Amino acid sequence: MINLIDDLKNALGSDIVKTGDEVPEHQHTKDFALRGVRPFAVAYPRSAGDVSVILRLCNQHHQAVVPQGGMTGLAGGAVAAEGQLALSLSRMGEIEEIDLAAGTMTVQAGVALQTVQEAADRADMLFPLDLGGRGSCQVGGMASTNAGGNRVLRYGMARALILGLEAVLPDGTIINNLNKMLKNNAGYDLKQLFIGSEGTLGVITRLILRIFPKPRSVSTALCSSRSYADVLAFLQLSNQTLAGALSAFEVMWADFYEVAQRSQKRGLPLPSGEPFYVLVEALGGDPLSDKEKFEGLIARALEDGVLTDGVVAQSLRDAEAFWALRDSPGEFRQTYWPNTAFDVSLPIGEIDDFVEACRDRLRSAWPDVNSVYFGHIADSNIHIVVQLDQKPFPKRAIEEIVYETVRDYRGSVSAEHGIGVVKLDFLEFSRTPEEIALMRTLKLAIDPHNILNPGKVLGDVSS
Amino acid sequence: MINLIDDLKNALGSDIVKTGDEVPEHQHTKDFALRGVRPFAVAYPRSAGDVSVILRLCNQHHQAVVPQGGMTGLAGGAVAAEGQLALSLSRMGEIEEIDLAAGTMTVQAGVALQTVQEAADRADMLFPLDLGGRGSCQVGGMASTNAGGNRVLRYGMARALILGLEAVLPDGTIINNLNKMLKNNAGYDLKQLFIGSEGTLGVITRLILRIFPKPRSVSTALCSSRSYADVLAFLQLSNQTLAGALSAFEVMWADFYEVAQRSQKRGLPLPSGEPFYVLVEALGGDPLSDKEKFEGLIARALEDGVLTDGVVAQSLRDAEAFWALRDSPGEFRQTYWPNTAFDVSLPIGEIDDFVEACRDRLRSAWPDVNSVYFGHIADSNIHIVVQLDQKPFPKRAIEEIVYETVRDYRGSVSAEHGIGVVKLDFLEFSRTPEEIALMRTLKLAIDPHNILNPGKVLGDVSS
Repeated sequence: MINLIDDLKNALGSDIVKTGDEVPEHQHTKDFALRGVRPFAVAYPRSAGDVSVILRLCNQHHQAVVPQGGMTGLAGGAVAAEGQLALSLSRMGEIEEIDLAAGTMTVQAGVALQTVQEAADRADMLFPLDLGGRGSCQVGGMASTNAGGNRVLRYGMARALILGLEAVLPDGTIINNLNKMLKNNAGYDLKQLFIGSEGTLGVITRLILRIFPKPRSVSTALCSSRSYADVLAFLQLSNQTLAGALSAFEVMWADFYEVAQRSQKRGLPLPSGEPFYVLVEALGGDPLSDKEKFEGLIARALEDGVLTDGVVAQSLRDAEAFWALRDSPGEFRQTYWPNTAFDVSLPIGEIDDFVEACRDRLRSAWPDVNSVYFGHIADSNIHIVVQLDQKPFPKRAIEEIVYETVRDYRGSVSAEHGIGVVKLDFLEFSRTPEEIALMRTLKLAIDPHNILNPGKVLGDVSS
Repeated sequence: MINLIDDLKNALGSDIVKTGDEVPEHQHTKDFALRGVRPFAVAYPRSAGDVSVILRLCNQHHQAVVPQGGMTGLAGGAVAAEGQLALSLSRMGEIEEIDLAAGTMTVQAGVALQTVQEAADRADMLFPLDLGGRGSCQVGGMASTNAGGNRVLRYGMARALILGLEAVLPDGTIINNLNKMLKNNAGYDLKQLFIGSEGTLGVITRLILRIFPKPRSVSTALCSSRSYADVLAFLQLSNQTLAGALSAFEVMWADFYEVAQRSQKRGLPLPSGEPFYVLVEALGGDPLSDKEKFEGLIARALEDGVLTDGVVAQSLRDAEAFWALRDSPGEFRQTYWPNTAFDVSLPIGEIDDFVEACRDRLRSAWPDVNSVYFGHIADSNIHIVVQLDQKPFPKRAIEEIVYETVRDYRGSVSAEHGIGVVKLDFLEFSRTPEEIALMRTLKLAIDPHNILNPGKVLGDVSS
């Protein structure tokens, strides 16, 4: 390892790497759940060329490398294990180009998501991907975890928002796949390998992101329904009526709404007690006709009986109050604790059956357990928070019950967050042995010495 | 090869394979450009299990296999070379499930595209991918070539319309990646390997397709503009105003419009002579407000001066007349012959510069040459037809000039059609040596004996 550090400094200058006590705290994590340790060294490349040299040398030394962005991931994909070298993209933080005609922004991997959003905004455009960690998470991490967030329904996940990228392979080869075109069927679509593979196949160094004209109108409503079948009928009607403009369809089951109201300072927009609540939002381009269309949708859904009640936001303040309910899990540390949270996906039609099964199975294990359910159901994505007054908190046992139920309903143990290290044991609940074997074949073909983020996603690939 | 045929018949019954003169004509092609020959045998599996047995046996015999769908591909990805065995998916033609809540249709790979469209229609839903070969092309081929077509702007290419799939690897392993969820970040997104790789990495046997609520309104206009900058400004305005509903933005350069009118039986909707014509279409969900919004868009663009003229279709018949102009290349065999046609993509902002450069370079080579330009420019996709009265027709020399110009403008030599065999020599115009090397690494990792569609996309991978 000493030779490697010397080689790195000789090749790229003494400031290319920090070691030992110089390694800053934000390059590791103290969150016990993520099982991270302090990397023995952190390299700070300034360019794809630097990344290439670093990986080539590490590959020669069979040195494990953890690519690191903003360290905001929830599955531990960027935490270091013992003896690993961290590769921080934090020096590669430039926005290189905004091409308004192509609708693209070319950025280095270390740019913060919020910086991208603000640059798009200054160009009177929108980069739609948005999530809580926007201020510190980096677009390289966003890409390598195929991040989702709040507007997936309208604009897609990170995969749909990346037209091209540059990535460095473990042997130092720079793959220039900086495509700007929406259509390109000239050979394999290599960018797909690096998106969502959590840094195990290559280090993303540059991205060509899609940007969009800014929406000119936002319409928001909070509604209630008496059954999941009605919720689905309302989703179908919303999809049809709003065409491509539907941007959120957030469903809250009754017990979630009960807990959510604990942290609301204002009165509730709709009384509690209904089986289902839906927050629906559309981003349009023509304020006048959009408003008419949106109010018509809610009126028709009430007439048809698929909604029992509904209130359309008349101001930004109204809309914020609706979203405050949906976002109340941010306050659960005060109102619903101790708990553990889940991010899973299921076929849309089966989500309510899943919810009932999951609630029942948890109750069978712990009569006093509480669990609440909510999420982007139009994206097939549901979140679960399980609360139980028990010490020590039986996190693992709860996980097993929830993920077993996900498996039984043919869902995914990770909708958005990835596998990282925290869901390693549950990958096989959602993927077949043949699929996992093929993932390993890919991993070993591209990274034969297993130096890139070893142990993540696939665990031990040597077996 | 005799042993292989016996093994296949012993394993799967005597009707699993046809050989020699029994091989029907539609399993090969007489189109000289595609360089196809009659395969020595065709296997007709009834299931993924059959495909698995066939590939496993072929792999043992190192027998090259060419997967075949409806044989409508334009790049020759499904034509057989000497000594190859064809694998026809034509017996696997069942629609297995329509899940309205999930918005999915599960189909076997041999179903014709039109059959899928019709089944969606009967369920009051839309499968949006559409192209000329709909009656005979199969969804397996649509997936393996990442087909595009007429509504990419609104709904995306095949890649965006496939949530999950089942594919068989060369060694017979069945990969079950039959995901129904819009979000699934549990491990590598393996379906991306098989989509668009033209049957070189696996044989797709089953697909989970996305289906959508039917649009309730279609708005169509034909417009003219005085400059490409104005066309782009109109695109930006259309994108913003119509939000997600914009479904077509077809640009016709002046000389295309001149040639197009030769085959029109009715009068022209707009007089010729303007530098640019644009056919714009929106698919909405609320007929009344959609019409108002669409007419407002055209009015505003005329006011702003980005359009010089514009006519909104008042009937289906009007809309058909607009599309007849755009689709006039179907008649070019009568009106513009001999010719050769191209499907390329370029960064949107540079398309007009590309068009000028391409036209000039062709003129420098042949003073009498004609070339016309049109296409889905919002998708970055442009088509070119080059006409020249010369015998023998200098197809290859024309291709070289066009593709060199594409390379110089950093475009793609294949927007939609793929590489197959006809664009093999030009892959390196759009992809770097490092990218092509990585494609070969993937190919050999998954198909070490190179039995699956050898020679396609990557040419000879042994070197």
